[in-house]
Amino acid sequence: MDRLIDAIRAKKNPTVAGLDPKLAYIPAFIRRAAYAQYGKTLEGAAAAVLQFNKGLLDALAPIVPAVKPQCAYYEQFGWQGMRALEATVRYAQEKGLYVILDGKRNDIGTTMEAYAKALLGTVEVDGTELSAFDGDALTVNPYLGTDGVAPLLPLCAQRDKSVFILVKTSNPSSGELQDRLLEDRRTLYATVGSLCEDWGTQTRGRYGYSRVGAVAGATYPAQLGELRRALPHTFFLVPGYGAQGGGAKDVAPAFDAHGRGAVINASRSILTAWQKTGADEQDYAKAAAAEAVRMRDEIVAEVGGFE
Amino acid sequence: MDRLIDAIRAKKNPTVAGLDPKLAYIPAFIRRAAYAQYGKTLEGAAAAVLQFNKGLLDALAPIVPAVKPQCAYYEQFGWQGMRALEATVRYAQEKGLYVILDGKRNDIGTTMEAYAKALLGTVEVDGTELSAFDGDALTVNPYLGTDGVAPLLPLCAQRDKSVFILVKTSNPSSGELQDRLLEDRRTLYATVGSLCEDWGTQTRGRYGYSRVGAVAGATYPAQLGELRRALPHTFFLVPGYGAQGGGAKDVAPAFDAHGRGAVINASRSILTAWQKTGADEQDYAKAAAAEAVRMRDEIVAEVGGFE
Repeated sequence: MDRLIDAIRAKKNPTVAGLDPKLAYIPAFIRRAAYAQYGKTLEGAAAAVLQFNKGLLDALAPIVPAVKPQCAYYEQFGWQGMRALEATVRYAQEKGLYVILDGKRNDIGTTMEAYAKALLGTVEVDGTELSAFDGDALTVNPYLGTDGVAPLLPLCAQRDKSVFILVKTSNPSSGELQDRLLEDRRTLYATVGSLCEDWGTQTRGRYGYSRVGAVAGATYPAQLGELRRALPHTFFLVPGYGAQGGGAKDVAPAFDAHGRGAVINASRSILTAWQKTGADEQDYAKAAAAEAVRMRDEIVAEVGGFE
Repeated sequence: MDRLIDAIRAKKNPTVAGLDPKLAYIPAFIRRAAYAQYGKTLEGAAAAVLQFNKGLLDALAPIVPAVKPQCAYYEQFGWQGMRALEATVRYAQEKGLYVILDGKRNDIGTTMEAYAKALLGTVEVDGTELSAFDGDALTVNPYLGTDGVAPLLPLCAQRDKSVFILVKTSNPSSGELQDRLLEDRRTLYATVGSLCEDWGTQTRGRYGYSRVGAVAGATYPAQLGELRRALPHTFFLVPGYGAQGGGAKDVAPAFDAHGRGAVINASRSILTAWQKTGADEQDYAKAAAAEAVRMRDEIVAEVGGFE
């Protein structure tokens, strides 16, 4: 996690901008131009998504340390959308941004290795190593247990990548399974949380945080604080800020005494800022940047500096 | 599930062939031809995968009712691999095969809807409905609860598709979380199982099985039988047969009194049959078909007919 934490400190901004490019968020001038070239096709939609993202990344790169593309919004446009995802990752990394791929992938053994190669690593094609999506971090679902996480760890160590395990998600029904008490009176999410500490033991960095982070939602501040205290070596990716209802006070418990230990995600509130503020569609990226600055300042004011 | 059950009855074969095309499984003559055309690139690897799959699908289509491409083995070759996945789905469906996309996708709300559109549905591009991967069924991870499953159901009903929820997976560490006893003394997997019954209530078909199926591994026959008794309206996708160690006796508990209620997956044992039997690499598909027939006969002998 050191690269992410260094980037947060350099920009004095513990937030990540989610890149969830629904077509409804994309200004008409961008969609029109894409359809003029490719028609109303998956290729046209993917071209609009990439153009939209490039404008956002140009405007956000000086402000945020990281971006989080949500794989579903690219996959919905087929392989053409996945091509736009790959181009988005490259463009963001060229701008010096840390890229968290939000794929919530999960499987076992060599299949999980294949996801690791796809999203964080390189794949061997008869002796030639090639990289596909090559993000800096990946979100992972823990339901399959250690068999679904262990295959990621060697590759993370080799290529300086990290993972974020779903622990306590931000959605209303996250409690249905995650909050259930087990026989030992601990919740399922707390149990998954301690597994994150175990999985990360060998990979702690300069700040004490391991390569195995956790996803914990801003919509459950009490659990967020409980997890922060219980998991001293687990860095948090915190969704649910902004459109999902979490505010600066809600995310404060995710941070440690140094103002470290978490990165807060907002997607919709940034991507739709131009619509919310009634800005000219040409200024969508400027509006996104302004919202990213507002969010940064709000959180920094609450949480304090980032030593 | 009616379409799948009809296909199983028509072919008197309750098995599904997993399409997990590792390059190591692909005969050298196919890889050489692909590299000659595209080089040792992701495009070359994807071309080899598609050629390998087409040969398999030609040979397997008369034998098996369904195939299960594992998304990870396509995603590892980037968007080019995803293009090969889309072409594989189309080719399999043209051959009359039911396609279960093994993506273990999971997310919430509109993001889960985007996965549904991508993998089972159509996506709207400014008024034009387009389909991307468009499989017949999708595997889904339940860790996020109802918010991660409900978004799939309207689309499944509209487009006659189904989902398989991970309940008790076949891997060694599946018990780490799934077998944990909750306060009410029920296991987590049993709890997820009853959620499958609830989620499927509105969508039961002619055979009494709903559109919400469950993944339950052949490597845990006792739990398989327990789930079969507890979940009368939930159809099972059963991995872990063959290479993972499950045999015909182990999968028998997955079936109901009519010999229905489950489809058994084998991947490696079918894809690598040509290597195991030392067949000529040109005959890889013939060897796969022979193994698929052997598996079918072994399971039918154990489970009986499929009325």
